[in-house]
Amino acid sequence: MKLTIERAALLRSLTHVQNVVERRTTIPILSNVKLVAEKGRLGLTATDMDLSLVAHEPAQVGKGGTTTVAAHTLFDIVRKLPEGSEVGIEQNGSGGEVTIRAARSVFNLPTLPADEFPAIGEEQLGVRFTMPASDLAKLIDKTRFAISTEETRYYLNGIHVHATKAGATSMLRGVATDGHRLARVEVPLPQGAEQIPPIIVPRKTVGEIRKLIDSIGGEVEVSVSPTRIQFTLERAVLVSRLIDGTFPDYERVIPTGNEKVALFDTKQFSEAVDRVATISTEKARAVKLSFDRSTVTISAVSAETGRAIEEIDAEYSGDALEIGFNARYILDMLQEIDGEKVRFEMASAAAPTVVRDPGDSSTLYVLMPMRV
Amino acid sequence: MKLTIERAALLRSLTHVQNVVERRTTIPILSNVKLVAEKGRLGLTATDMDLSLVAHEPAQVGKGGTTTVAAHTLFDIVRKLPEGSEVGIEQNGSGGEVTIRAARSVFNLPTLPADEFPAIGEEQLGVRFTMPASDLAKLIDKTRFAISTEETRYYLNGIHVHATKAGATSMLRGVATDGHRLARVEVPLPQGAEQIPPIIVPRKTVGEIRKLIDSIGGEVEVSVSPTRIQFTLERAVLVSRLIDGTFPDYERVIPTGNEKVALFDTKQFSEAVDRVATISTEKARAVKLSFDRSTVTISAVSAETGRAIEEIDAEYSGDALEIGFNARYILDMLQEIDGEKVRFEMASAAAPTVVRDPGDSSTLYVLMPMRV
Repeated sequence: MKLTIERAALLRSLTHVQNVVERRTTIPILSNVKLVAEKGRLGLTATDMDLSLVAHEPAQVGKGGTTTVAAHTLFDIVRKLPEGSEVGIEQNGSGGEVTIRAARSVFNLPTLPADEFPAIGEEQLGVRFTMPASDLAKLIDKTRFAISTEETRYYLNGIHVHATKAGATSMLRGVATDGHRLARVEVPLPQGAEQIPPIIVPRKTVGEIRKLIDSIGGEVEVSVSPTRIQFTLERAVLVSRLIDGTFPDYERVIPTGNEKVALFDTKQFSEAVDRVATISTEKARAVKLSFDRSTVTISAVSAETGRAIEEIDAEYSGDALEIGFNARYILDMLQEIDGEKVRFEMASAAAPTVVRDPGDSSTLYVLMPMRV
Repeated sequence: MKLTIERAALLRSLTHVQNVVERRTTIPILSNVKLVAEKGRLGLTATDMDLSLVAHEPAQVGKGGTTTVAAHTLFDIVRKLPEGSEVGIEQNGSGGEVTIRAARSVFNLPTLPADEFPAIGEEQLGVRFTMPASDLAKLIDKTRFAISTEETRYYLNGIHVHATKAGATSMLRGVATDGHRLARVEVPLPQGAEQIPPIIVPRKTVGEIRKLIDSIGGEVEVSVSPTRIQFTLERAVLVSRLIDGTFPDYERVIPTGNEKVALFDTKQFSEAVDRVATISTEKARAVKLSFDRSTVTISAVSAETGRAIEEIDAEYSGDALEIGFNARYILDMLQEIDGEKVRFEMASAAAPTVVRDPGDSSTLYVLMPMRV
C-alpha cells in the first residue's frame, strides 16, 4: 500500500469512523481502522461488531493494498498535522508497520492483518429506498430523547420504524418510548419503502447516522432486511444489526378522548418549568401543573430544598385539575417542539397526557403523569 | 430582612461565592451562602472553612437582617430568572424561610441561622499593599500549572510568594513546583510589601482570586499575616488560610552554568511536541529531543503504539545531546510563554534544564529530564 491523501479529506472520514470504535474493547483488532487503498481512493472501515461504517475519500494511490492500524491514534495524529498538508501512507515490506508522513513528521504504526478484521457480511437486503437526509433527521430528532436506556428492556433501546397510513397518505413512522414517555413522528413514505418490515434501530446507530447526515447531507439510500439496515451516503456507508425483539403495541397507550386541553407558549412554559424544577430533587424531578378557571400554575415542593410556584400564561377551559410530571421529560420534549405553541391534552392526574405541536400534525408525544 | 436587587448584580456575586461552596460537605451550613442586608447593599458570604469570600452588591434594603440559604439552589434559581428582572428577597416572621420573588415566580427556601455560619475571624493582618490586578494575574498564570497535586507534599500544593531582589530592584516572586518542573515569576514589589513574610497560597485560593481578577479587575489590596492572606477588590473580599509549611529551598535546583543552548520557535516547537507525543503512552508521556550539529529532532517510541519522529527548526551550537522530557510538562510550560522564541539551557540528559522566554526576563522555568 502506498498513497497520498489530503489531510482534510482523511480527517473528515476518520472523524466519522473513529466514533464507531469503542474506547475499551478486549478484542485488539476492534480498536483498529481498516485501510483499503484502491484505484483513486482510500476506504476506511471501523466496526464494533454490531455496527460498521465505511467511508471513502479520493486519494492518489501508487500501490493498492489493505491493512489495519489503531483508529484513535491515527485520528489524533491526523488531527494534529498542519492544516493543508498532504499525508503519505505506506505499508512497509513485511506489512508489520505503516508509515505516515506529512510535512516534517514521520509516524510508524504497528498493524494487524486486514483479513482478521471482522466484517458485517454483505447480504441481499430486501427493501431499498431513497429519502431526503432532512426527513431521516426529523425521524431521529423528534424521537431519540425518549429511547429507553434500561438494558433489560432491550426492545426499547432504539427507534421503532414502520410504514403506516395517515388518512389516505402512506407515511414512514418513527416511535421511541421508555415507558414513561413516548414520541411519535411521521414523514412521507419514500417510494420503494412500502414493504419495509417493522424494525428497531439501535441507539448507537441512530447517533452515528445522525452525525453523518449533519456532515454529508443530501439524499440517503436506505436498505433494510428483517435483521439489518444499511445507510448509503455520498462518501460513507453505515451497516448495522437491528434489535432482535418486538416493539410493544404502542398505539394502545395513546389516548384519543382527552378533553382537558391547555395551550401554552412553548418558550415561556419551558423556562417556567425549568425554574420551578430547580426546587425538585435530582431523583424525582416532579413539578405540578394546577389548572383552574382563571389561572394556571406550576409548582414544586421538596422537604429539603423548599418550594417554588410560578403562574403562567395558558388557554384552558376544562375543569379544575392538578397533574404532576417529571420536569426533565417535559423539557426534553419541548426542546423538540418547533412551534410557538404547545398543546396538552389531559384526562386526569393518573391517565396519560397527549402533547402536540399545533403547527405540526406529524409529531405526537405522550407523557405519563407522576403522583405529586 | 427585606430587599430588592437587580438580577444581574445578584447573579454576578453569586457566581463568585457559589464557587467556594463545596458540592459535598458533611456540615450542612457550609452548603449555604450567608446573606447580610444592610443600608443600601446586600452582602453574600461563602466559606469552606479554609477560604471565605464576601461579595457586595447595591440593593434597595427595606429591612436589614441576616440569614443563610442553600448557595447552589439560590444560584440556579437566579441564573434561570428572566434577564433584567428585579429580585425581591424577604425573610418571613419566624426566620425559618426566605422568599425569593421575581417576575411571576415565587420560591421559598429553608434557612439556617446566620450565627451558626463559620467565619474566618477578622484579625489584624500585618503587611498591607496594593498591586495591579494584572501583576497578580501574572504571578498566578505563569506558575500555577506547576503546583503539585500530591497531597502528602502539602507544602507544594500552592504558590510560594516572597520578596526578593533582581539586581538593585525589589521584586515580588511567585514559585511553584511539583518536583518534576518548577515555574518562577517576578513582578515589581508593591510599595508596602517589603516586610511580606514568605508564604504559600493554596491552589483553591489561587483559582478563586484569579477568577475574581478576570471579572472585577482594577487594583487589588493584599494584606498578609504569617497564617492568612486577604484580597480586597472593588466588590469582593477573599480571605484564606495559608499553607502551614516550609517551601523547599528551590534556588538550589536552578542550575546556572548550563551551556548547551537551543532556541526554538515557540509555536512550531509546541505543535511538534504535541504531534510526536501522540505516540507516547498516557502514563509516561516521554519525548526525546536529539540535538546534533545540523539537525534537531523530537521523537517518541512506544512498544504498543509505534514510533514518531519530527525534525524541527532550532538554533543550536552545543555538542550532540539526547535528552528526554515529559511532553505534558513541555506543553504546559510553552502555553505560558508569550514570546515567539523559547530558550532551552541544558547540561546533560540527567541534569535539570532551564527554560526561558528570551523576551521576558521575569519568568524562568526548570524541567527535570526523563530517562528515554
